Amino acid sequence: MSQYRVLIDANDEKGLVHKVSGVFYNYDLNILSNSEFVDKESNKFFMRSVVDGDVNKEELSKAIKEVLPPKASLKIVEPTKKNIIIMATKEMHALGDILIRHEAGELEANILAVVSNYDKLESLVSKFNIPYITVSHEGLERPEHEKKVIEVIESFGDVDYIVLAKYMRILTPHFVETFEDKIINIHHSFLPAFIGANPYKQAYDRGVKIIGATAHFVNNHLDEGPIIAQEVIHVNHAYSWRDMQRAGRDVEKVVLSRALKLALEDRIFVYANRTVIF
Amino acid sequence: MSQYRVLIDANDEKGLVHKVSGVFYNYDLNILSNSEFVDKESNKFFMRSVVDGDVNKEELSKAIKEVLPPKASLKIVEPTKKNIIIMATKEMHALGDILIRHEAGELEANILAVVSNYDKLESLVSKFNIPYITVSHEGLERPEHEKKVIEVIESFGDVDYIVLAKYMRILTPHFVETFEDKIINIHHSFLPAFIGANPYKQAYDRGVKIIGATAHFVNNHLDEGPIIAQEVIHVNHAYSWRDMQRAGRDVEKVVLSRALKLALEDRIFVYANRTVIF
Amino acid sequence: MSQYRVLIDANDEKGLVHKVSGVFYNYDLNILSNSEFVDKESNKFFMRSVVDGDVNKEELSKAIKEVLPPKASLKIVEPTKKNIIIMATKEMHALGDILIRHEAGELEANILAVVSNYDKLESLVSKFNIPYITVSHEGLERPEHEKKVIEVIESFGDVDYIVLAKYMRILTPHFVETFEDKIINIHHSFLPAFIGANPYKQAYDRGVKIIGATAHFVNNHLDEGPIIAQEVIHVNHAYSWRDMQRAGRDVEKVVLSRALKLALEDRIFVYANRTVIF
Amino acid sequence: MSQYRVLIDANDEKGLVHKVSGVFYNYDLNILSNSEFVDKESNKFFMRSVVDGDVNKEELSKAIKEVLPPKASLKIVEPTKKNIIIMATKEMHALGDILIRHEAGELEANILAVVSNYDKLESLVSKFNIPYITVSHEGLERPEHEKKVIEVIESFGDVDYIVLAKYMRILTPHFVETFEDKIINIHHSFLPAFIGANPYKQAYDRGVKIIGATAHFVNNHLDEGPIIAQEVIHVNHAYSWRDMQRAGRDVEKVVLSRALKLALEDRIFVYANRTVIF
Repeated sequence: MSQYRVLIDANDEKGLVHKVSGVFYNYDLNILSNSEFVDKESNKFFMRSVVDGDVNKEELSKAIKEVLPPKASLKIVEPTKKNIIIMATKEMHALGDILIRHEAGELEANILAVVSNYDKLESLVSKFNIPYITVSHEGLERPEHEKKVIEVIESFGDVDYIVLAKYMRILTPHFVETFEDKIINIHHSFLPAFIGANPYKQAYDRGVKIIGATAHFVNNHLDEGPIIAQEVIHVNHAYSWRDMQRAGRDVEKVVLSRALKLALEDRIFVYANRTVIF
Repeated sequence: MSQYRVLIDANDEKGLVHKVSGVFYNYDLNILSNSEFVDKESNKFFMRSVVDGDVNKEELSKAIKEVLPPKASLKIVEPTKKNIIIMATKEMHALGDILIRHEAGELEANILAVVSNYDKLESLVSKFNIPYITVSHEGLERPEHEKKVIEVIESFGDVDYIVLAKYMRILTPHFVETFEDKIINIHHSFLPAFIGANPYKQAYDRGVKIIGATAHFVNNHLDEGPIIAQEVIHVNHAYSWRDMQRAGRDVEKVVLSRALKLALEDRIFVYANRTVIF
Repeated sequence: MSQYRVLIDANDEKGLVHKVSGVFYNYDLNILSNSEFVDKESNKFFMRSVVDGDVNKEELSKAIKEVLPPKASLKIVEPTKKNIIIMATKEMHALGDILIRHEAGELEANILAVVSNYDKLESLVSKFNIPYITVSHEGLERPEHEKKVIEVIESFGDVDYIVLAKYMRILTPHFVETFEDKIINIHHSFLPAFIGANPYKQAYDRGVKIIGATAHFVNNHLDEGPIIAQEVIHVNHAYSWRDMQRAGRDVEKVVLSRALKLALEDRIFVYANRTVIF
Repeated sequence: MSQYRVLIDANDEKGLVHKVSGVFYNYDLNILSNSEFVDKESNKFFMRSVVDGDVNKEELSKAIKEVLPPKASLKIVEPTKKNIIIMATKEMHALGDILIRHEAGELEANILAVVSNYDKLESLVSKFNIPYITVSHEGLERPEHEKKVIEVIESFGDVDYIVLAKYMRILTPHFVETFEDKIINIHHSFLPAFIGANPYKQAYDRGVKIIGATAHFVNNHLDEGPIIAQEVIHVNHAYSWRDMQRAGRDVEKVVLSRALKLALEDRIFVYANRTVIF
């Protein structure tokens, strides 16, 4: 008995649910959960089914492909731990939250390493017997620094996701392309408000009554990748921007961990710079 | 071309989605939205599909029934306005919110009448050209009073839902049975906390930091019917119970209107004293 | 016995609370509530006290002024109903919510009139015996149209607040200056995200997971006046921008009514394009 | 220059703010923040001021006492780290969150030890060089077990707070009295709903749409001590009670850490089984 997550992304046409669920029926699979969504505007069909039963992956894949329209994307994933690398700079809260969840067995992930441009978080990370690699950017041009970071990441072999847990350096297009669709960032504002540097200072100056955080995939437009999760908290006039920053940390860590969990469970589809989340 | 909401509630078995969606496919129907849920614990299957196409209701019903297991419940509903009667006592906020939404065309409903045990809200309701019937409980035993209320309600013919918009009288089992599964109530607390009289006073005395409201179907256990929607707001030590009551009104009206909308759109399934909401 | 709201806005200096509360003590006033805030960055002191006792307003004002630093602002307000005019266009929800609250006696306000560029809402407003004046903008340049609107507003005498309940026309600097610090707007986004036209469409295109609304005073920078209140709701991939718009209405009306209530109760201080709210 | 938190709890009388702030003024102290609250119902006055300046604690205390009514309570606290002991059982999330915050320097606390009835969390706690003491309850009557726990706690000297981070044993009145007003618990429900065992199972059975967590001081009525903080999240029909439990953990840890922070910063006053929080 094997369990599979069946992930379909196709142009919509009549009968898709019927046909795909027919494959499950023919193989006598149990459907543990099933979600579909059709985006009418773009005519795109998305489906995520979790099934278990007695069939091998190749056969199931072949059978489903036969009923899908041309150019459909099909992924069949077994629920195993994914390999992730975390990048951080100096702040402990988002990284720490992931480390504790990992330790508690909450995450379907192996943390291969933490990579940072400072050594500040090494003492925390090493407690958990996870490799910590400092790649200082001191005296290096951005491409040089990133080249070293990429070498470090690639030295760990296949990586499913790179999690930017408050990594405070801007990434070049080259880096983003190298790990396309694999980089998850936490931005410390309610995007698209306060793009760029020091969002809490910007929020304070604007006098907002709510602050937030946004987890998103990184593409080559700063702070503009597909949004995975957002959360907010109320603030008031008595908050300095430092207070907002402090309060914001609790939102940042919650949102990043939520987004990571969704990614590890294969619940996110990306299209047209937005996400479908089952 | 007709539009139908197909509502299925059955014991789960393999292939149900495949078979039902097969009926839609055979009739060449468009699936505008589709939701399923299986409750593993009770082995119950729920499905709500919105389809349009060229088929009459009887034929569609017959075809779907053929693929459903025995004892399955099937409802096929056309999206027309439902008939509702609102019951209220003296408070204006929940009733007023429904009246404005009705006036704005937000609700799939005809408000046949407002029935109250006081005449206080008559001047508001009559502005909207909706019949207002006062059935005073003064000097009447509860069964006598309810008998009159039931007569009034039944004089309006078929009623789909009775909405208790802060109707502050306890209903007898007879009343509840007369309108089984049709009565929606707003309870001014976050159930099951503070069941019974004056929940805001109870909440104040307990020193809670959050208050809420609960919309639920009414059954014969006071404040214990299936919950449809709940919402909360934060309060603090500076709130007297009157302040909580005032603040709570905004939650009450939002929650009741949300629940009513879900009911009017046939999005609620009830089983085992809980709701499945699509 | 009279009740006063004492509102102080001054440069901070040591002893201010002591001195002002000393005046209350000397006149044997009861302090019903008392709030202070010092903005350290700008060295500004804000205080709102509600007191009652046996003193006339002029005498109290004179006594407090004697203990305040130069250039301090002092307002002493009796809790009477303020005069407001509502401006709207075609949407009913925000206006309707204010009308019901007014009818229920929840607002310390007289609604002098509703002014609109369309006649669509007249049938709703006239139910409540409130004057409705349509000032069509058809065939008029913006300044001409506004001139007429200003004439209408001024015909009602002194107005404390002008509430833009989804008034969908951009105001000229002249209009804003004419009613400086008196115009409260509801913007249908979580400012500063999605400034400008059709924020729900913008929000949909950006793929956000939360939408919101912002009530703010209007100044001469579009959507950039001091923020009074903000609220949000979660959305997901299944929301079209029309769905976001529908869902957003519930937030808009709640936020606008909350902001209006704060203004009517003299709870808002404005400085440096932000608000202090007691 | 010293900084003090001045905490006053007294029967209300006219002039209290004036008199206390007069002491600050006479000593030429800076008021960094100032909050007062009068509970009208019980006629109780609460004040928390943070001041700095050149005065010793005894002198300041003496001067303030002179202006307070009889039986007033006055505490003057210097902002130093408080000593806390954490008690846990087997779950990692709430404990882990506190450990990371402690490591990040977010908490004004020394964690003297973690005490548990199991050894399961030892490997986590020992990473942070914090003593972990297992006091197994196996084969012991409750009073015997608690006697051992109390001995362990008292071996660490003065303890300001005992934090029950999902300590799953019921405490006896003797234990509660031994550490009166010092025990902070996280209860995994939105109290007063679902008092007692397995609140998530209870919540599931009741079909609620919102679950929550409550941090409170422990008194001798199970789950009935003064509430410090509460938070909730929305759930739906697709949540099994295990899913609610998982989702609830994120709320539990946030609420407990928030309550702990408030306690460490001396922001909580307790009276009449409720809290005033500045």
